[in-house]
Amino acid sequence: MNTLDSKIIRPTLLLDKQKCIANIEAMIARAKRANAQLRPHFKTHQSAEVGNWFKERGIECIAVSSLQMAKYFADNGWTDITVAIPINVREIDLINELASKIQLNLLVESRESILFLESELKHSVDIYIKVDTGYQRCGIPSEAIGSIKILIDLIKATDKLNCKGFLAHSGHNYNAKDQKDIHKNHSKTLLDLNELKDTFRKEIPNIEVSLGDTPACSISEEFYGIDEIRPGNFVFFDIMQYVLGSCEENEIAVAMACPVIARNIDRNELVIHGGGVHFSKEFIEADDEGTKLFGSLVRITKNGWSEILGGGFLASISQEHGIIRCNDILFDEFTIGDIIGILPVHSCMTANLMKDFLSTEGDWIKTMNS
Amino acid sequence: MNTLDSKIIRPTLLLDKQKCIANIEAMIARAKRANAQLRPHFKTHQSAEVGNWFKERGIECIAVSSLQMAKYFADNGWTDITVAIPINVREIDLINELASKIQLNLLVESRESILFLESELKHSVDIYIKVDTGYQRCGIPSEAIGSIKILIDLIKATDKLNCKGFLAHSGHNYNAKDQKDIHKNHSKTLLDLNELKDTFRKEIPNIEVSLGDTPACSISEEFYGIDEIRPGNFVFFDIMQYVLGSCEENEIAVAMACPVIARNIDRNELVIHGGGVHFSKEFIEADDEGTKLFGSLVRITKNGWSEILGGGFLASISQEHGIIRCNDILFDEFTIGDIIGILPVHSCMTANLMKDFLSTEGDWIKTMNS
Repeated sequence: MNTLDSKIIRPTLLLDKQKCIANIEAMIARAKRANAQLRPHFKTHQSAEVGNWFKERGIECIAVSSLQMAKYFADNGWTDITVAIPINVREIDLINELASKIQLNLLVESRESILFLESELKHSVDIYIKVDTGYQRCGIPSEAIGSIKILIDLIKATDKLNCKGFLAHSGHNYNAKDQKDIHKNHSKTLLDLNELKDTFRKEIPNIEVSLGDTPACSISEEFYGIDEIRPGNFVFFDIMQYVLGSCEENEIAVAMACPVIARNIDRNELVIHGGGVHFSKEFIEADDEGTKLFGSLVRITKNGWSEILGGGFLASISQEHGIIRCNDILFDEFTIGDIIGILPVHSCMTANLMKDFLSTEGDWIKTMNS
Repeated sequence: MNTLDSKIIRPTLLLDKQKCIANIEAMIARAKRANAQLRPHFKTHQSAEVGNWFKERGIECIAVSSLQMAKYFADNGWTDITVAIPINVREIDLINELASKIQLNLLVESRESILFLESELKHSVDIYIKVDTGYQRCGIPSEAIGSIKILIDLIKATDKLNCKGFLAHSGHNYNAKDQKDIHKNHSKTLLDLNELKDTFRKEIPNIEVSLGDTPACSISEEFYGIDEIRPGNFVFFDIMQYVLGSCEENEIAVAMACPVIARNIDRNELVIHGGGVHFSKEFIEADDEGTKLFGSLVRITKNGWSEILGGGFLASISQEHGIIRCNDILFDEFTIGDIIGILPVHSCMTANLMKDFLSTEGDWIKTMNS
């Protein structure tokens, strides 16, 4: 057994710190070229330690996807946090607690939320209006200038809400067909945010616009007029991003390491301990016939993992079991008790489930879920 | 706000204890009618407290899906535990620790595992041979009498492995088209296990056969020759089981309670805080066009929830957001800050992610993930 292999007892999420830091540094450089602030989204790693790798490189502002995550990072020394989901008014106590300690930036998209905050806030917060530039998940449609104006006027009439500008998320880039599609979506978001900036420049002094999705932030160099970018997944990347073209294979910084627990020679299948409670059940369709792929295979090496192995893939998962379908060569290579590496389809979901990561240097890295 | 509603701050998994206990009692009665031991699978709830509801009704033997889960329940007083997944040889230290304390029952399906256990075990364990009656996940095909005979002979030649019999899991029943399909699969499993019992009655004294899946254990009354049943999901049920016909709507014992954080009047969509990190991303196809359904809607009441609401469903989820698509009536009923109830598609995955449950009586119930 090599060094890394010998530390793996059960399904384990390996994190290659060097690849991860290279991803962080590449995105810092990209933001600098774009003359935009990088406010990395920490929902992917959810880890104070990984957060420190950003901090050591000058990052001071972050985005998170829940108030509980904001609390975790505030408790770990972060002082400027955007909660990038429309506020949940029921969490007002936590909002007030955080707003008393840090620069808290919240998202609104409704009159109700604005009126509620003004009535219940004990400390002032910065506010972004969530706009929708095509994803159709949430946000005011960026074309709805009248509705947006109403919200701005409402915010300006408050004492505790300081309107900063607009925030968009092109989540539809995750469903893009190809890079052309991503560029097209991104161009629309750029155009929409710049139009909003021009339209409301007078109403909102020092107006800012923020966008953030790993596909566009990874493949585009065009961020004209954008003040802030908020990608998150790029810290680890995954097979979904690799397929979209957001990253190279060797930029994927996490791999699941799973023990082989059974082999079926009739079907050329390896059974691993590693299922929905480890990977999540996200998959991509590997071909036109809808073949599901839950992860790509790698060989665990002394201090990391190999290139993707042809000839097999993680083809199905139940709660704790995973089935790897493979050719004769791969099948013969792995026996009961061996560890097989799997690059996950969606690293955010996998990291959230796995809670802790094992660095390829052999150190355990904790997260808010540890 | 009613009593239950006022306790909900963020996405919360509600557990109706009365429905859950009724499910437990119904399965105990069914096992009694079948003259089979009920060894409930605890992977669904993963909770010592829910486990106690079984214990109070005479259940002493359980199944779990990982050795870590076995350890948790052993630490909580359970003394007869089957780990219903082929053993992971890398966990031998934990196997030895548990085998020194409790009646530990393990699954094998390979020569390698048997030889490894005989070499490394410090205490004796009971062994079931995993057989495959049609699911094609793992196990020796039940027809492969020759291969099975080799394993039995190997086990009989060991000192520390006590061969108990055969264990099967008709997981393909979760993908069944209809109840007829489930009955057909179940009949084959019954037949296969009875044939194995007859074939190996002389080799294995007091031979036992065990099967377990919620669909068959919920809809069939036919368990001829079966010594033990191991269903798990029935403790909570979910929309998948409801669609399969394993349960009535009012037997589903868990519901997610999620705050409404945004509303889109143009698309009649309610946005909830509640996404893949709460529900998992499992879905069922609601129609022939492949419309995805991630959950069905209910209204949270003073001490539980309503029948399923027509006119809307959880139509998509990302990491923290969920989108409910609904008609005008439902749309108008819910405003920002309201709680909407959602019956999950797959309660095992949702319970695993949510970690704690809030009973409809207002008490927090902890799990091994708390």
